[in-house]
Amino acid sequence: MMASSTPSSIEHTMLAASEQLQVPSNISKFKIGLCQLSVTSEKNQNLACARNSIKAAVECGARLVVLPEMWNCPYSNDYFAKFAEDFENEDASPTFSMLSEAACSHGITIVGGSVPESSDGQLYNTSCVFGPDGKLKAKHRKIHLFDIEIPGDITFKESDFFAAGDNPTIVDTDVGLIGIGICHDIRFPELAALYREKGARIICYPGAFNISTGELLWEVMQRARAADNQLFVATCSPSRDSSGSYAIWGHSTLVGPSSEIIATSGHEETVVVAEIDYSKIELQRKGLPLDKQKRADIYMS
Amino acid sequence: MMASSTPSSIEHTMLAASEQLQVPSNISKFKIGLCQLSVTSEKNQNLACARNSIKAAVECGARLVVLPEMWNCPYSNDYFAKFAEDFENEDASPTFSMLSEAACSHGITIVGGSVPESSDGQLYNTSCVFGPDGKLKAKHRKIHLFDIEIPGDITFKESDFFAAGDNPTIVDTDVGLIGIGICHDIRFPELAALYREKGARIICYPGAFNISTGELLWEVMQRARAADNQLFVATCSPSRDSSGSYAIWGHSTLVGPSSEIIATSGHEETVVVAEIDYSKIELQRKGLPLDKQKRADIYMS
Repeated sequence: MMASSTPSSIEHTMLAASEQLQVPSNISKFKIGLCQLSVTSEKNQNLACARNSIKAAVECGARLVVLPEMWNCPYSNDYFAKFAEDFENEDASPTFSMLSEAACSHGITIVGGSVPESSDGQLYNTSCVFGPDGKLKAKHRKIHLFDIEIPGDITFKESDFFAAGDNPTIVDTDVGLIGIGICHDIRFPELAALYREKGARIICYPGAFNISTGELLWEVMQRARAADNQLFVATCSPSRDSSGSYAIWGHSTLVGPSSEIIATSGHEETVVVAEIDYSKIELQRKGLPLDKQKRADIYMS
Repeated sequence: MMASSTPSSIEHTMLAASEQLQVPSNISKFKIGLCQLSVTSEKNQNLACARNSIKAAVECGARLVVLPEMWNCPYSNDYFAKFAEDFENEDASPTFSMLSEAACSHGITIVGGSVPESSDGQLYNTSCVFGPDGKLKAKHRKIHLFDIEIPGDITFKESDFFAAGDNPTIVDTDVGLIGIGICHDIRFPELAALYREKGARIICYPGAFNISTGELLWEVMQRARAADNQLFVATCSPSRDSSGSYAIWGHSTLVGPSSEIIATSGHEETVVVAEIDYSKIELQRKGLPLDKQKRADIYMS
């Protein structure tokens, strides 16, 4: 299910408290929105576009909205430091303010993709999660930085620009326990397994795979993490026409707990809205109890 | 690359010792043959077909041949006990004898798919690996039995018929270190990770996925195990028209260390022959050192 992400104005409607309380904490079925944004070199424009896109997702019924990796800033070393914000200093962070306001005014949970964070003289590739009250619920700093050098194909060294995070992030939200990873974090099955073990029912991976690794691995990785852990995986990418140092694969996707693709997109700017039904997890795990079938006693080296 | 598996006669040509010695122990490039066999309810016919198919693979240049899961016996409880053999009693095991003779006469390594093994009053789903000298090099008993119950889709309980193996199997062959898994074993990333850690450069999974889980998961699982561990994954299935209790997916496949499909098949009886080049592993691991990028310090729960 897709909807255009081009509403003409930003509307900040605060929900009444009574409306927010209608969201049950044990919600089992709801819609997720994946905002595949076109990132420009104008931060204010990126913020406005993201805000519009969140609104469009909400208008399609989304209670959980995910933004792409590095959505307020071109993926390029020329911009990271200039666009970085310090989230400890909330009032001086327009990105923080916008996400907080959007979550609160729509009464939704937002996994705020990722943006460059400046902290103690370091830069991090950081995802902020906001609850329907507008409060920051969690902050995930990308753990596995993307350093690759395949001659004739792709060379990229993210650790030249960013410091790595040291903590897995699992966050208890109005729509259940969510594990957070950013892009290259998806390449590590151990992280997904940890989130599963801690009770996550969705793992959200904002990501900006390039067209080389994207075509080869983006879908396979999402589907494998979902199948191996019998949970939902949601990814959100910038669109192909985004500014930055490389061409982006796009294809923001929701995958279900038996590895089925529930909804996906092409490479253009769009919003994917699709339903998450947790009963699919229970059905899958009951019918094929991979967890019970595991033989932890023999996986030791 | 494919070749028909229907040579008209069985030829048992012993290689001279000098020819066998031409295989270097540090071989880095060679061909693998995946014999996608049509399994019947006649064991002798299955043995003859397998023998022919091995020969066809060798004639296409294969130095390593893989057979399907349960290739000498229909996948049905009516046959398992009747077709089972005791591999401790080699002379009374026609399956053991054929595989040993084929490996020796062609001077190749054979991963003998799997067949029902009878041992100490139990049945196991067992894979035997033979070296170019015809000797048994390893025996893998399927560790993770396929017990599934998805109403309206598929119900199967392999543990009603078979006992589970308790040991991972990694075997040092003329063509390098090979990890062995059988079918549902592929669903467990921990086993593949263990093989990678112990130095495997190929994991062979004889398997008989059904058309339901096959279409959904067969390719994804192979490609994810290959990508996550940066090694080759080879699978071998019976063909769709095989006898047994369910419809088989087929699609025997070789996947390379960046998850690329090197060669695959449809569902019909065939032999897939394709090249394994270990330098691809080194290239991949050097360019994208996933092992070094792992953060074992934070995956603990």
